[in-house]
Amino acid sequence: MLKVIAQDFIHPDHIETVMPLYKELVEKTRQEPLCLSYELFVDHKDPGHFIFIETWPDRAALDMHCATEHFQRLVPQINGYQSQPGQFLLMDACAGTEALAAWTAVPVL
Amino acid sequence: MLKVIAQDFIHPDHIETVMPLYKELVEKTRQEPLCLSYELFVDHKDPGHFIFIETWPDRAALDMHCATEHFQRLVPQINGYQSQPGQFLLMDACAGTEALAAWTAVPVL
Repeated sequence: MLKVIAQDFIHPDHIETVMPLYKELVEKTRQEPLCLSYELFVDHKDPGHFIFIETWPDRAALDMHCATEHFQRLVPQINGYQSQPGQFLLMDACAGTEALAAWTAVPVL
Repeated sequence: MLKVIAQDFIHPDHIETVMPLYKELVEKTRQEPLCLSYELFVDHKDPGHFIFIETWPDRAALDMHCATEHFQRLVPQINGYQSQPGQFLLMDACAGTEALAAWTAVPVL
């Protein structure tokens, strides 16, 4: 199981512009058969700091996500409004602390 | 609903020392009645970079967590092995992209 945190930093003048792009990206990604969870958050302290928290079965599934039509079309558009480069963190559950069923409970539709 | 990402950076010589402290912190925190989720991950690229992803009903619940006996006892011990200060990010779900039942599906025991 692969957990991902992807952080975007959007110029404050363009937050309203990216919101429909984010919304479509989230909706289409959740329809991918291998997507276990895909949630988008915003930093309390910075309305242009967006944070995706994602769960994928493995790296191959993440790579397939990054190759989808919606990712390839929407992410470059979103990146055009960045104030600084995005940051990506790939993680494993920490051995001995796994939450049983934490990300397999109920499919998020 | 409040989402938290808390990142710890532990000196590589002390990873084995902090693991039982993390394990106790995770176990006891998940028993808190207001804890909706509390997961610990490790960065693929850095075995001393630990990432908590947490869900709380609100800021008051997070503050209660930070005041618990186990937090007050364990976190200062863990921090004694840091290689650099921790980072904390408090977030809201991004309006219009919320995943229904994403963090209310099934209690994680």
